Amino acid sequence: MTVQLSGIGVSRGIAIGKAHLLERDHLDVTEYRINADLIDAEVERFRRALGGAREQLRGIRGRIPPDTSADIVEFIDTHLLMLEDSTLTVAPELLIRKQGINAEWALKQQRDALVQVFEAMDDAYLRTRKDDIDHVVSRIQRLLVHDENVQDLSAIDHLRGTIVLADELTPADVVLLYHQGVAGFVTEYGGPLSHTAIVARSLRIPTIVGVHNIHRYIQDGETLVLDGQEGMVLAGADALMLEHYRQRQHQDQERAHTLVKTRLEPACTLDGVCVRLFGNIELTEDVEEILDAGAEGVGLYRTEFLYMNREDTPDEDEQLEHYREVIEQMQGRPLTIRTLDLGADKALDTEAAHHCTNPALGLRAIRLCLHDPGLFRPQLKAVLRAAALGPVQMMLPMLSSLGELRQTLALIDEVKHELTVEGKAFDPAMPVGGMIEVPAAALAADMFAAELDFLSIGTNDLIQYTLAIDRVDDEVNYLYDPSHPAVLYLIRHIIQAGVRHQVPVSMCGEMAGDPLYSRLLLGLGLNSFSMQASSLLEVKDLIRHTRLDRITEPVETLMHTWDPDRRAELLEQIRNLLCT
Amino acid sequence: MTVQLSGIGVSRGIAIGKAHLLERDHLDVTEYRINADLIDAEVERFRRALGGAREQLRGIRGRIPPDTSADIVEFIDTHLLMLEDSTLTVAPELLIRKQGINAEWALKQQRDALVQVFEAMDDAYLRTRKDDIDHVVSRIQRLLVHDENVQDLSAIDHLRGTIVLADELTPADVVLLYHQGVAGFVTEYGGPLSHTAIVARSLRIPTIVGVHNIHRYIQDGETLVLDGQEGMVLAGADALMLEHYRQRQHQDQERAHTLVKTRLEPACTLDGVCVRLFGNIELTEDVEEILDAGAEGVGLYRTEFLYMNREDTPDEDEQLEHYREVIEQMQGRPLTIRTLDLGADKALDTEAAHHCTNPALGLRAIRLCLHDPGLFRPQLKAVLRAAALGPVQMMLPMLSSLGELRQTLALIDEVKHELTVEGKAFDPAMPVGGMIEVPAAALAADMFAAELDFLSIGTNDLIQYTLAIDRVDDEVNYLYDPSHPAVLYLIRHIIQAGVRHQVPVSMCGEMAGDPLYSRLLLGLGLNSFSMQASSLLEVKDLIRHTRLDRITEPVETLMHTWDPDRRAELLEQIRNLLCT
Repeated sequence: MTVQLSGIGVSRGIAIGKAHLLERDHLDVTEYRINADLIDAEVERFRRALGGAREQLRGIRGRIPPDTSADIVEFIDTHLLMLEDSTLTVAPELLIRKQGINAEWALKQQRDALVQVFEAMDDAYLRTRKDDIDHVVSRIQRLLVHDENVQDLSAIDHLRGTIVLADELTPADVVLLYHQGVAGFVTEYGGPLSHTAIVARSLRIPTIVGVHNIHRYIQDGETLVLDGQEGMVLAGADALMLEHYRQRQHQDQERAHTLVKTRLEPACTLDGVCVRLFGNIELTEDVEEILDAGAEGVGLYRTEFLYMNREDTPDEDEQLEHYREVIEQMQGRPLTIRTLDLGADKALDTEAAHHCTNPALGLRAIRLCLHDPGLFRPQLKAVLRAAALGPVQMMLPMLSSLGELRQTLALIDEVKHELTVEGKAFDPAMPVGGMIEVPAAALAADMFAAELDFLSIGTNDLIQYTLAIDRVDDEVNYLYDPSHPAVLYLIRHIIQAGVRHQVPVSMCGEMAGDPLYSRLLLGLGLNSFSMQASSLLEVKDLIRHTRLDRITEPVETLMHTWDPDRRAELLEQIRNLLCT
Repeated sequence: MTVQLSGIGVSRGIAIGKAHLLERDHLDVTEYRINADLIDAEVERFRRALGGAREQLRGIRGRIPPDTSADIVEFIDTHLLMLEDSTLTVAPELLIRKQGINAEWALKQQRDALVQVFEAMDDAYLRTRKDDIDHVVSRIQRLLVHDENVQDLSAIDHLRGTIVLADELTPADVVLLYHQGVAGFVTEYGGPLSHTAIVARSLRIPTIVGVHNIHRYIQDGETLVLDGQEGMVLAGADALMLEHYRQRQHQDQERAHTLVKTRLEPACTLDGVCVRLFGNIELTEDVEEILDAGAEGVGLYRTEFLYMNREDTPDEDEQLEHYREVIEQMQGRPLTIRTLDLGADKALDTEAAHHCTNPALGLRAIRLCLHDPGLFRPQLKAVLRAAALGPVQMMLPMLSSLGELRQTLALIDEVKHELTVEGKAFDPAMPVGGMIEVPAAALAADMFAAELDFLSIGTNDLIQYTLAIDRVDDEVNYLYDPSHPAVLYLIRHIIQAGVRHQVPVSMCGEMAGDPLYSRLLLGLGLNSFSMQASSLLEVKDLIRHTRLDRITEPVETLMHTWDPDRRAELLEQIRNLLCT
């Protein structure tokens, strides 16, 4: 009998190997009082656990293979930095002293407060960052509870070639297990945007997350087939099935080799229509990866991380330093810096986060920045100054009204004047563009195109607002559909507004990097895509195997077809159009 | 010197009178432990306060003037019923016993749990219902803290002709003060959808809410002018200004007399275009009010209240009884019943409410009903049976995909079959329509028009999702703009889809009852409006003083104008077009 379980594929590829179930005892943290005379000892106990956690992580960092990409080291370093941060060091100590409680409970309280802030965030990627807190906190908690290193994965033997099944894995776990030759990962929890998923992709280990109740269906030691693309894990496959998957594994490897060759080829269709392919980045280290994958520039540089995991906000010079590093690595290629796209909940002000019933519909991104010019001005100035160092443009998130845009443009004029007075170099002609991600902005794209230098379609939010669903909400994410007729209408409308006003239109949402939609987007007239590094080569390859003239007609038909079955057929047809 | 303060006008009309500041001491509820042997006494203390609160409310109910409309009595009755409900009677007692705490703290905990549920609700009206809990709870709390009736407004002398200023007022307060001849109300807190506001409108007492820091600016006893339409209160007016407002007061009264005369007149423009005017109702008692205001039927019957403030859900027969009462009162006029429009947070399941980061983008309305057919089926059956008793149609809220609609239609077919088998009378040809309130549904209006018998535009949600703002969120509600070009585009698009598919399109959101937009909506082609009773006569009068042929052109220009200043001019022009 075969058992097939499905989850979310977060790192592609086929893995075949024996199951290794990673059992960890459940952490049960309880509250108890500490006598006044024992408080010092309790604080000492907490510090010991903190030190132990640092030691563990440094050990893991030391074992990362030298050829590993820089961002993985960065993830471990992020956790190490968190272990030095006052929110996880000083704050729990104060709670122990103030409330006279045990270290575990103090840490838990602090964890809950921190996590609440992340949970209230609108951006799915940022929301996932709460995992980092959980990973670090649970590492300390385990050391507090057991006062020993029960989690030493490096001590487990015979992992080479196995598929590891676990409730959850931290980025550090993934690195350690990779080092031991693990062939694939399956976890109960986690999402595609988690750092764990990113590390697995980066190390090219096939991985599926969100497979519920794995323990109930899979035995330790049985042979599994894992398909990271389909998000499927199969137990009890017979010889024929195993052979089939071994062949697919082989084909995948061949294909990866072919893809790498397209790195320097132009992104043009078979009938000679060329598009621009950009990368989305967040850390300076990401630049290398997108350039390796042939990106001609950065279409989305997220700047939220400059503002997070700290008490204060970064000043103009600190920001400029970050931008300068990225610009240097870009060696003259264009860079689009998105201004702060955070919610009001950012400032660790849990009180505020609590009062906002629907943070996705609240004070965030450009709204927050205009509400708090003291936060916004240093960034505007830093980006203007960065634009003097290379081809930089500024992108404003979440515009919905012309009033907001004009207010922002006036503020930019003001800070330009300040920079002039201060005698600082900046680019007075720096292009300013806007993310079109609110339905109102999409419908009024002409209005924004008339006043901006470029537009970029943010599909994640645009789809969420248009369909009135929160994709992170498990109970409604089945309604998330990038090919909903309303969404396609809006995308085409934005592209056409750009044409009417001779303003470039790009797309930087996830849809841009999903090969399932590449041809459809080409057919809608999109000629500029920005995506994560891992999708660049595949999307380029697909474009290079497309004849645009064959797509135009079915796309036109699709735009006037309401019947869901007929639409599905047309979408399928567009995706699989003959490539010659 | 004159001082002018502004707030939200919730009940129109001019009032002129001396200020009476209603000071109430702040309720400071603290937690303390109760010794085991005193628990019974504490429970007794709680019961005494509960009894006292009931007595107070019954007293107020007895003093309501006999000619007062039924819904006011209903509001007081709602509070009386809450005082009998287990959530406020049994539950706090259990908390006192289980946790060994004081009655105030037990009640506070229970209040917090109840309020949380309401705060997570998406519908602004329903969210406001948390005030009812607060009013009832604070009445009990005051009796607990002071153990006497400090809040007896009926004991205050010399209120006749005064303008009462308070932090907040309950519906009961408003009734009592009305009885004492109060001329107007100004409160610091509250909103236009609160029962307090509804009672004030119903009693025609000019009222403004949301005037912050009134106590700082206004002296007890000084003469005030209150303009309930503009949401303005003025202190220190000179004789000339007072005379001006007295004249306006007089004109208003004249106008009210004139309006009543239009009750039986047709709702046709000067150039002979007739529209349909319907009322929005919630309680059976509302029917009388909308018929008095000349409504030709009900365009929106909210059914959420059948499901709230109770542990179980109403069964088919109970629902049918409610619908039957309304149908009887309607005497053959059409009735549109909206199926349940609540969030998953309804079932007092605070756990669930907590996990949903953005309830407005979550499992609610039709999504919840399809997710839980056990909840939906009894309502579908009750509405189908009601349709055998009179001209009833069913309206589905929050549709976004065709899949949802088809699933609902299949479910309706199923329950029709059940009703046939059960031998119950129902209308097999009952029209089924949909609310168009999600941007995706608005853009795909043709798709829905092709499968439904009618459409109704829900502007409140449509505007919120289109602009990605939560109107109840104070920090972003400045962006709420029914005349945003994107919103007007969607409204016109829905109306035109209805014309293309020969399906009637109505509007039941607040915009439909706002005289500021009546002419604009006429110009966009809307020919069916549904609104609260208090707006019906005024909107009709406005329509009767409109020449549609003069509006068409400026509306057309508006639809192609992006400049905000020019748009404001055009809107002003449309609003004030000559009435002859």
